[in-house]
Amino acid sequence: MPLSLPEIQRPNRELLPFLQKHLDNLTKPPGSLGRLEELARNFGLMRGSTRPTLDKRAIFTFAADHGVSREGVSAYPREVTAQMVFNFLSGGAAINVLCRHFSIQNVVVDIGVDHDFPELDGLVRKKIARGTENFLTGPAMTESQAIQAIEVGMTLADGYDLVGTGEMGIGNTTSSAAILATVTGLPVEEVVGRGTGVDDERLRHKISVIRKALALHKPDPNNGLDLLMKVGGFEIGAIAGLIVGAASQRIPVVVDGFISGAGAIIATRLTPACRDYLFFSHLSRERGHKYMLEFFDVRPILDLDMCLGEGTGAAVAMNIITAAVHIYNEMATFESASVSRS
Amino acid sequence: MPLSLPEIQRPNRELLPFLQKHLDNLTKPPGSLGRLEELARNFGLMRGSTRPTLDKRAIFTFAADHGVSREGVSAYPREVTAQMVFNFLSGGAAINVLCRHFSIQNVVVDIGVDHDFPELDGLVRKKIARGTENFLTGPAMTESQAIQAIEVGMTLADGYDLVGTGEMGIGNTTSSAAILATVTGLPVEEVVGRGTGVDDERLRHKISVIRKALALHKPDPNNGLDLLMKVGGFEIGAIAGLIVGAASQRIPVVVDGFISGAGAIIATRLTPACRDYLFFSHLSRERGHKYMLEFFDVRPILDLDMCLGEGTGAAVAMNIITAAVHIYNEMATFESASVSRS
Repeated sequence: MPLSLPEIQRPNRELLPFLQKHLDNLTKPPGSLGRLEELARNFGLMRGSTRPTLDKRAIFTFAADHGVSREGVSAYPREVTAQMVFNFLSGGAAINVLCRHFSIQNVVVDIGVDHDFPELDGLVRKKIARGTENFLTGPAMTESQAIQAIEVGMTLADGYDLVGTGEMGIGNTTSSAAILATVTGLPVEEVVGRGTGVDDERLRHKISVIRKALALHKPDPNNGLDLLMKVGGFEIGAIAGLIVGAASQRIPVVVDGFISGAGAIIATRLTPACRDYLFFSHLSRERGHKYMLEFFDVRPILDLDMCLGEGTGAAVAMNIITAAVHIYNEMATFESASVSRS
Repeated sequence: MPLSLPEIQRPNRELLPFLQKHLDNLTKPPGSLGRLEELARNFGLMRGSTRPTLDKRAIFTFAADHGVSREGVSAYPREVTAQMVFNFLSGGAAINVLCRHFSIQNVVVDIGVDHDFPELDGLVRKKIARGTENFLTGPAMTESQAIQAIEVGMTLADGYDLVGTGEMGIGNTTSSAAILATVTGLPVEEVVGRGTGVDDERLRHKISVIRKALALHKPDPNNGLDLLMKVGGFEIGAIAGLIVGAASQRIPVVVDGFISGAGAIIATRLTPACRDYLFFSHLSRERGHKYMLEFFDVRPILDLDMCLGEGTGAAVAMNIITAAVHIYNEMATFESASVSRS
């Protein structure tokens, strides 16, 4: 079955003067809330509404293992992916604390962890395989697996007002760097970072693994499916699917950091129009992320030196976007508050 | 009565290795939460606790008028200060929306508005006078008024775990720029910005007013009380008092933007040790603010192009600090979650 992609409407630019007029009527000097005003305006454009509501919010944390983790490209053993899924389910991970604090739903999806989970409260079981293949020696996944990963993500955003991306997968900065190097044409050593914190020697090894893999596969930088199959990961495919599906429903997506950004690259290579529905949450400390943001030509909302993944940057930014929309909806106008204008 | 300043203890640096060890035991690569870890660590140091609680939080919004507003240095008429106080009390201002969204208490203090407020629900009445004098022709306030403003602020933080500063006062960027120019020695035109949005002509006038005032008063850059009396404002004095009082109780203070920063300058000139209890929330778009942050040698938490005041930047940053402390207190450790280490 070939991949069938939904249609994506452009945001309704005709609403812009109405959104702007409302912002300028609020009791503050025009523009004085800076990027909060920009976020509220863009949210309205994406939702196609001058009175956008924002109630149902979720961060999707997709977990999967990577064949390339067998090459020793991470500071942590492969088992940590499954262990962290249990940690997510018992509420002890950073993403859990942030989502509780911000009243955001966190949805954990097993899209390809190397562990057989029983039915567990809070786990969405969508496993494609127990990890990808090692892309140093062959494609990471088959075409049908790549399509499956995208399709799993594609319907998950339905019914939400705003969703965020997140992931867990030992080895996934290696996959993401391979994708980024391919689409930007930048030297591999420029886009590869320390991930979970590898030392100098392992960093050199990680660079060499990616170089060899790209020489072997020569992925097509303009073909999202080809990139995903050859050097991607199941969680990266699911993130791409989440983005494409959300955009088709005019649901904005808050993109987390480096791995989520690789998912966004795949998504925009599958269907460029989804770009209009993305908020970029933060500048990650992971080395290649600044090039990823340059690729998207975007200034992120936050710069907090974070590089954890899971959706943690998306959660913090989502709360700021939500505050911005509340400001848009709840502030008094000069007229209603009887405040004099300049 | 001379000003009597409380003693301020230094943060307990001996706790640092214990705070760091706990952070490194949490289920994430060491340091991967970046500045969130820094914020949690600093909060623990300030509170003098390796298990700091963070429940009671407030932003104090001090409102006052300025004699210098008679010189036409603002884009808005003087009456807006009182009108905005009514807006705060009815919940329609940006600070209200943010505090509601983040579950932060907002305390509105009339420290010198040119309006006779009756007793009103939610208004703390501490008026010193109906605005300062015009500092173009004489000192903004008497020494006893300056002391009174500081003393009003000094006890307000008692009982809170974390407080933030905010203000409202037509004309107060003029006062703040005068303070900043004095302590940094920078040319007036470098530190003066557009405030609520003055045009080029009014900006030149504002610069000329400040130049004349500084030539007249020659405030002592090392004397907080002298600075406050000659070119300050009641709300700036109260913010300085809030900071000094909070620091003496080991209560951290989140400093908002440009005017709150002027209050922080006064506070650290009164008693330099209070510097250790400050979080700087954001880089304001107000022109001089980058120099203010350089003066304090600090990297702010946020950079969102905001320049509204009221405490709006402090509110957004306070919520991030709170999230950081929750992460510190609530995340699982590698041991408790049975996650393998690197």
